[in-house]
Amino acid sequence: MTDSSTNMRLKLPITCFILQIILIILFGVLVQYDEDTDAKKHHHGNHSKTKPDIENDFYYRYPSFQDVHVMIFVGFGFLMTFLQRYGFSSVGFNFLIAAFSLQWATLMQGFFHGLHEGKIHIGVESMINADFCTGSVLISFGAVLGKTSPVQLLFMAVFEVTLFAVNEYILLTHLGTRDAGGSMTIHTFGAYFGLMVTRILYRPNLDKSKHKNCSVYHSDLFAMIGTLYLWMFWPSFNSAITEHGDPQHRTAMNTYYSLAACTLSTYAMSSLTAHDGKLDMVHIQNAALAGGVAAGTAGEMMLTPFGSMIVGFLAGIISVLGYKYLTPILENKLKIQDTCGIHNLHGMPGVLGAIVGAVTASLASKEVYGEGLEKVFPEVAGGHRTASYQGGVQAISLAVTLGMALFGGLIVGFILKLPIFGAPRDTTCFEDSLYWEVRKPQSHFSYCMKKSEIAVMC
Amino acid sequence: MTDSSTNMRLKLPITCFILQIILIILFGVLVQYDEDTDAKKHHHGNHSKTKPDIENDFYYRYPSFQDVHVMIFVGFGFLMTFLQRYGFSSVGFNFLIAAFSLQWATLMQGFFHGLHEGKIHIGVESMINADFCTGSVLISFGAVLGKTSPVQLLFMAVFEVTLFAVNEYILLTHLGTRDAGGSMTIHTFGAYFGLMVTRILYRPNLDKSKHKNCSVYHSDLFAMIGTLYLWMFWPSFNSAITEHGDPQHRTAMNTYYSLAACTLSTYAMSSLTAHDGKLDMVHIQNAALAGGVAAGTAGEMMLTPFGSMIVGFLAGIISVLGYKYLTPILENKLKIQDTCGIHNLHGMPGVLGAIVGAVTASLASKEVYGEGLEKVFPEVAGGHRTASYQGGVQAISLAVTLGMALFGGLIVGFILKLPIFGAPRDTTCFEDSLYWEVRKPQSHFSYCMKKSEIAVMC
Amino acid sequence: MTDSSTNMRLKLPITCFILQIILIILFGVLVQYDEDTDAKKHHHGNHSKTKPDIENDFYYRYPSFQDVHVMIFVGFGFLMTFLQRYGFSSVGFNFLIAAFSLQWATLMQGFFHGLHEGKIHIGVESMINADFCTGSVLISFGAVLGKTSPVQLLFMAVFEVTLFAVNEYILLTHLGTRDAGGSMTIHTFGAYFGLMVTRILYRPNLDKSKHKNCSVYHSDLFAMIGTLYLWMFWPSFNSAITEHGDPQHRTAMNTYYSLAACTLSTYAMSSLTAHDGKLDMVHIQNAALAGGVAAGTAGEMMLTPFGSMIVGFLAGIISVLGYKYLTPILENKLKIQDTCGIHNLHGMPGVLGAIVGAVTASLASKEVYGEGLEKVFPEVAGGHRTASYQGGVQAISLAVTLGMALFGGLIVGFILKLPIFGAPRDTTCFEDSLYWEVRKPQSHFSYCMKKSEIAVMC
Repeated sequence: MTDSSTNMRLKLPITCFILQIILIILFGVLVQYDEDTDAKKHHHGNHSKTKPDIENDFYYRYPSFQDVHVMIFVGFGFLMTFLQRYGFSSVGFNFLIAAFSLQWATLMQGFFHGLHEGKIHIGVESMINADFCTGSVLISFGAVLGKTSPVQLLFMAVFEVTLFAVNEYILLTHLGTRDAGGSMTIHTFGAYFGLMVTRILYRPNLDKSKHKNCSVYHSDLFAMIGTLYLWMFWPSFNSAITEHGDPQHRTAMNTYYSLAACTLSTYAMSSLTAHDGKLDMVHIQNAALAGGVAAGTAGEMMLTPFGSMIVGFLAGIISVLGYKYLTPILENKLKIQDTCGIHNLHGMPGVLGAIVGAVTASLASKEVYGEGLEKVFPEVAGGHRTASYQGGVQAISLAVTLGMALFGGLIVGFILKLPIFGAPRDTTCFEDSLYWEVRKPQSHFSYCMKKSEIAVMC
Repeated sequence: MTDSSTNMRLKLPITCFILQIILIILFGVLVQYDEDTDAKKHHHGNHSKTKPDIENDFYYRYPSFQDVHVMIFVGFGFLMTFLQRYGFSSVGFNFLIAAFSLQWATLMQGFFHGLHEGKIHIGVESMINADFCTGSVLISFGAVLGKTSPVQLLFMAVFEVTLFAVNEYILLTHLGTRDAGGSMTIHTFGAYFGLMVTRILYRPNLDKSKHKNCSVYHSDLFAMIGTLYLWMFWPSFNSAITEHGDPQHRTAMNTYYSLAACTLSTYAMSSLTAHDGKLDMVHIQNAALAGGVAAGTAGEMMLTPFGSMIVGFLAGIISVLGYKYLTPILENKLKIQDTCGIHNLHGMPGVLGAIVGAVTASLASKEVYGEGLEKVFPEVAGGHRTASYQGGVQAISLAVTLGMALFGGLIVGFILKLPIFGAPRDTTCFEDSLYWEVRKPQSHFSYCMKKSEIAVMC
Repeated sequence: MTDSSTNMRLKLPITCFILQIILIILFGVLVQYDEDTDAKKHHHGNHSKTKPDIENDFYYRYPSFQDVHVMIFVGFGFLMTFLQRYGFSSVGFNFLIAAFSLQWATLMQGFFHGLHEGKIHIGVESMINADFCTGSVLISFGAVLGKTSPVQLLFMAVFEVTLFAVNEYILLTHLGTRDAGGSMTIHTFGAYFGLMVTRILYRPNLDKSKHKNCSVYHSDLFAMIGTLYLWMFWPSFNSAITEHGDPQHRTAMNTYYSLAACTLSTYAMSSLTAHDGKLDMVHIQNAALAGGVAAGTAGEMMLTPFGSMIVGFLAGIISVLGYKYLTPILENKLKIQDTCGIHNLHGMPGVLGAIVGAVTASLASKEVYGEGLEKVFPEVAGGHRTASYQGGVQAISLAVTLGMALFGGLIVGFILKLPIFGAPRDTTCFEDSLYWEVRKPQSHFSYCMKKSEIAVMC
């Protein structure tokens, strides 16, 4: 199962080495510790008297960061192990492109979010933001899963991280959009970018490896590890970079209830849409998470648990319907081969989340938020804009994000189509042994079983 | 493997939808943000001056909450995947009933623990309490694992959560019982409730599916994921809702040492009770956790690491002996078919924990606790009762809990026996394909292997 | 597969019981709560006025502790499940010796790190230190994996924990060495101790069980669970016991970037050194972690993200080269049978980390660290030694550690060679069924499949 075009012997090492060396040089030139990580700055003058150690941002955000980190590496990684012969690549390429993206995102986000005398200052908040940006790349990875080489994925990450940072800059800095949990910046962007890339990379003969594009019993259990970690830690994800205090607390709680409601509607819809009432693992693994996506923008607002549950409830329904009815249409009519169904998990719920955010923002008032309005809508609290104007900005941000994602995906898709990246052939998609040493691959369920043992069995 | 009586096509969607819609309506009517999650309340007047953001309860409790959350969804979920053909249901039904229970528990516990002008105020502490109550339902699930439909489980949860909240209300509010880690309220209640339910649901012909009621190699490894997360995070569980400061710190540490000692006695007993000295995965997966259960009541007290280790040591011994000798007796003589052996993991260690708590409470004194007595035994510190009276109250609370659990389980068991819930037949117990889409189930170890591949092997 | 010499029926229970009872007695005599865990001490006099609850060490360190705990039990445990028939033992013996070691380490470290009027005072920091010491034992376990009985492992832990504490005492207390993440005390010590033990336990006929010393598809996925948890939580590991505030924050961040860079160089080298460019799971599972090891000493220093990335980049390269070229040499020429390749993951990267630490320390200055110098190099800040002297001390500490590890491993290796411990025969290495009840082991991939089902297949 090796041929010269897909051989990674030179392509992958050269790509990794060059990218990493560029990263190291740029970090050397551009990156510095911030106030809370630098030994000198943290103790400058009588600074330490006014800010005790416990108020170092580390103690506010590091537990959330670690949860986000688990979502990125175990959550996304194992969620994609559902394929029977693609577990090494799912976890392994996820690992590789995430490790690259978080470094590159640190630079891109630091560059756009504001330099300090030409330097990027970093700490736990920038680490979370880098993981967030990485999440967006991994969402897109889900659309092209099984059909791309690791070199293609690394190049996709290079471009996607850059565009992500530009879009985020436009939204958060220029438009003053609120999107703490990233319904727009992370999920909508990652999903529509990935869908456009997979559209450009359309393979008319993909059914040649169709028999490998399905799960086996244990691969579905591995995928549930990913699902559950994403589900459990989504409250941390949405609340990781909100303001300290009540916004962080409230966001986590809103997300918790949104996810719970989403889970029940997912089970209901999965059973209802099956002819024999049986639950489908694909729905449980994915649609039950849509409630977290949909609470990404409004989670920090005074959405109330009641509102969060309605949002989650709807997200679960939409997502299952998408898996059942829309994905086949996308594939057959629009030639969008979306391996993990990211349109149902991140695309539509992301758009829903953006809309809910716009509506909730337009209803914000001093009456409801009190002095806390400052923390959630500083522009509104400062009198620079009305709540309905903020709502309009939120809606425009969704349009900007969709445009950036689709246009970016179009360009990047064509770049990735170049024959130099070692993409798999149609017959070797969804197959680990193309890029991984798999011991004695005579039989996929037991690579080490000897011929003699098989003989004994029979 | 589908027949009309077990078909979930209408039963499950209707149940999920109705339950979720009722929950949403009740949340809309009854639930509000508390002081630490509401934007307005948190910043009311000069409140923010007296309470900096870092003292928001979120920063005291959220890391513990996340650990508890992992125990509920990954810990309980994967612990039950040891069955060879029931992994989807173990993880999947665990997920479903937990997502329901935590919402319902928020309402029931809020209702009983004190309304604020007719409203339930929620924050991270109520989220932990909701997860705790959910844990109790999942313990009961362990007793009936493999023998119940998801609709039966949802109805069990409806009733069990309600009774849990009543019992907890009687103990914590009326009697002034101390039970931070829930040896009584969670473990003893969940275990004896579940044992009574499975007694009522007794199946004389369960041996028809006996060959599926066993583990395979990889299913035991999946179960170890559950075991280890429960084991590692039990210190967080027991300390999650203790008072801030030293009690939380002390509880985590006592539990840590109790579990460590329990693990050694579990390995010792597992080897000692096997005729050939070989360790049994069932014991390791379960009995090694008994030390956490048994430290649930006294963990916050001045039990000392020394005392904690003795408790854990005994819990491990009792638990292995239970698996080895008591479970077969319960099944054959008392007709209690306890799939996961919850009597050994939660029942007996829970009772042990309650007794240890009563003894430790009766020995409390100002000499040992100093000013800290107020945080652990406010009634004793305030002079309203003596330490030995507190000990007596703890003992009575165990009796109340046992009574509530057994009586509640009796009633609920008979309700669940109604033929409308789609319970599996005796021949289709412990079988995922009854409720789940399992791809090409011609052979249980490889649902996707094609006939031709098998031919090649032979 | 049972013979009298390897039967654990009496050996294992007696060892466990005696060790645990000794531990309980010593805890009863020697161990007390510290200031932050004792109800009385924490509230002594007007203490509570000067130290609010949030400044209890619990809130600074408990989230880090839990991450470290996950690394010890899930990280190390699952990392070693890559062997096809040794998953129960990998996870199970890891669990057993870790549960023992953390108790024994509490005593040994408490004894050497300073008694308070003859008593050992414990809290969350001592729990982290105990887990650290346990990590060292588990590293050594990796070298002898598959070739030792649980009783041998327990005795190895008894001696190794003791020597670890002595070495740590010499370094941290006497020499004033800085080694927050344990490049020397944990990784170098554990690796060279384990390598010497496996050298002494050399089995010339180990190739008799060679066919079991390899992975299967799903066992490699289980191992990735271990890898990813180690990778994700290494920033918590290295920062767990640094000083509060900026050092903890900085260490976590340095480690994060070191690991990211290491991952890219690992993928590059794995592909480059394979004749067909295919990635090797062994490298990904192990070498990608070397960046965490190598940042263990200098992580708390002003290494900068730039420096951290260079260190991680080199660590990944060295580690893959070690697996590819050095491990076979060690085995064939030096008779060191290193099952998990700990020399490549912990040995060489640990030495690298120590050297980086020495260099970084020798460059420390008030100019760079400002007032923060006190927290990282108290001896230098206090004027008791120069930075270059500190660097020299760091280098000497590496030599001391290597000496202690090799000499200790030599002695302990000979002790473990005594025939009383029930070591497996050469033919039954890497085999769970020697020490574990494995149901119906007629075929390793499906212990429960009935003969009739196999017949149907064919």
